Amino acid sequence: MKNSQVILAQRPVGVPKPQHFELREVDVSEPGEGQMLIRVSHWSVDPAMRGWANDVPNYSPPVELGTPMRSLAVGEVIASRHSDYSEGDVVEGMLGWQSHALSDGSNIGHKVMETDLPRTYALGILGLNGTTAYFGVMDTLSAKAGDTVVVSTAAGAVGSAVGQIAKILGCRTVGIAGGPEKTRQCLEEFGFDAAIDYKSEDVSAAVAAACPDGVDCYFDNTCGPISDAVMTHLAHGARIAICGTASITKWDPLPIGPRVHRQLLVTRARMQGLLIFDFADRLDEARNALAGWVRAGKLSVREHILQGPETAPGAIEMLYKGENTGKLLIAV
Amino acid sequence: MKNSQVILAQRPVGVPKPQHFELREVDVSEPGEGQMLIRVSHWSVDPAMRGWANDVPNYSPPVELGTPMRSLAVGEVIASRHSDYSEGDVVEGMLGWQSHALSDGSNIGHKVMETDLPRTYALGILGLNGTTAYFGVMDTLSAKAGDTVVVSTAAGAVGSAVGQIAKILGCRTVGIAGGPEKTRQCLEEFGFDAAIDYKSEDVSAAVAAACPDGVDCYFDNTCGPISDAVMTHLAHGARIAICGTASITKWDPLPIGPRVHRQLLVTRARMQGLLIFDFADRLDEARNALAGWVRAGKLSVREHILQGPETAPGAIEMLYKGENTGKLLIAV
Repeated sequence: MKNSQVILAQRPVGVPKPQHFELREVDVSEPGEGQMLIRVSHWSVDPAMRGWANDVPNYSPPVELGTPMRSLAVGEVIASRHSDYSEGDVVEGMLGWQSHALSDGSNIGHKVMETDLPRTYALGILGLNGTTAYFGVMDTLSAKAGDTVVVSTAAGAVGSAVGQIAKILGCRTVGIAGGPEKTRQCLEEFGFDAAIDYKSEDVSAAVAAACPDGVDCYFDNTCGPISDAVMTHLAHGARIAICGTASITKWDPLPIGPRVHRQLLVTRARMQGLLIFDFADRLDEARNALAGWVRAGKLSVREHILQGPETAPGAIEMLYKGENTGKLLIAV
Repeated sequence: MKNSQVILAQRPVGVPKPQHFELREVDVSEPGEGQMLIRVSHWSVDPAMRGWANDVPNYSPPVELGTPMRSLAVGEVIASRHSDYSEGDVVEGMLGWQSHALSDGSNIGHKVMETDLPRTYALGILGLNGTTAYFGVMDTLSAKAGDTVVVSTAAGAVGSAVGQIAKILGCRTVGIAGGPEKTRQCLEEFGFDAAIDYKSEDVSAAVAAACPDGVDCYFDNTCGPISDAVMTHLAHGARIAICGTASITKWDPLPIGPRVHRQLLVTRARMQGLLIFDFADRLDEARNALAGWVRAGKLSVREHILQGPETAPGAIEMLYKGENTGKLLIAV
């Protein structure tokens, strides 16, 4: 039995591209005592993978060259000598870009219990993306009914969940996305009250028009010019969640932009970093809420599934170019 | 009886200078029904006055030309037809740069009850400065024992109180100030554990040396290069209070500086604007705590009192040049 892997072969600067990866096959090992063997069915493609592949200070150490690219993935246990897992269990975890993963359980996120829903949801709406959106809206943004919530990358896996969760809470939602197809998705699939196409509109003027009472909450996935425009329209007591910085590809040296200090002071706004790791002990709360909303038809999910390991090397670049039309996944 | 006023005669751009003001004398009016006449003894000089004098969007409307400069002040009621105030009461309020103020009570902050302490304390440690420091440390920074707290303009009226309150809570305190005399004050008068002279030291290297475990709390009065340096040394979960932006004189167009987004994301730090107006219903709590610490000898106060209305036109510039050596006041 062969293990198909996509390894990080060269260290990228900025967004990893096809030339930074190589495909290889290695033998699959038998699980030792306390281990299990997982047949991985789907790999996740997430913005954070840019940071993992780069050799810069970050919240995780960089991926070692010559090893499978770090990645969340979902799969089925096909052999187990681990007391907590049985053959047939579906698990989600940091299994990497490989078709077969040996695990002692330490890199497993959770056993997937929502067997009535597609397994891939464990990587998206019930995984990193959905839970990040959930805690971002509930905790970092402290969104409440009546708030105007602006979201960048609003058609993306996190952004679309942020908008829908905020809507469920009774907020007015404004999505910023690139191009007519994504703004259509925002309005028709994800229920945003307004959508702004940053590729064809003056974002600042469009935010002002869509948010006549100012922006109470801003879920920021982009940094850069889009965020700079939103920041000029904060309402008193606004909350800003910094979840990602997609539009900035290099942070060393620090990029330059408009200072936010006076905007925060005048509106007494709060700007805070958001990373799902900090909510590790509350993931069940988020998954239960999210699964309930999915089952009730209140939360729409859109997936974009690439076919085969050979699609992986170009996938992160595709994500950063915004070419995907839903949560980006690779079917192994 | 004559009322000596210092009026805003010309609209400044940036820091108001002597040429923007004029002294004049007008007749004192008798208080009407529901009014009182206050003999003002001391005017306050505060960084916020730059914003009040400028014609830019702000949290208060600009001072009208030809009227006394807006200012906090303290004085004694010398005639009253107001049911809540009697002759002899000492009051603190937005009385402006004038020797006699008619008031219907709406611009009065509070009646000064701490008659055992100098009256001027109502403008400093028990006024805007001290209460801002109190809520900044307690609420915005959520400082707790063991935290490393860095303060800019650490020898100033707000900064020196921030450092001392944090110290009372059991924090390790690091003050940043300009010049050897102010750093000496930080260490010897205000009890900072370390002091950094931004005029002669590499602030980033000095913060790294003084904060080996990173900066848990940063009370920012400056913006600009000092803050940029501190922001590169945040600890996980850091809190940053944006109280002032002294080093930036113009905000239109927005000044440019290093983007803080990734620093906030990687450390999950929180950056928030702080303005005392938001704590109007809790001022008694702060004044009681502060007065208690002053009486117990735990809170040192340093005042710099200029003599006479003719010193007022240059006072705001003096403050921004950092030439004062304590809370800046004008004895009328």
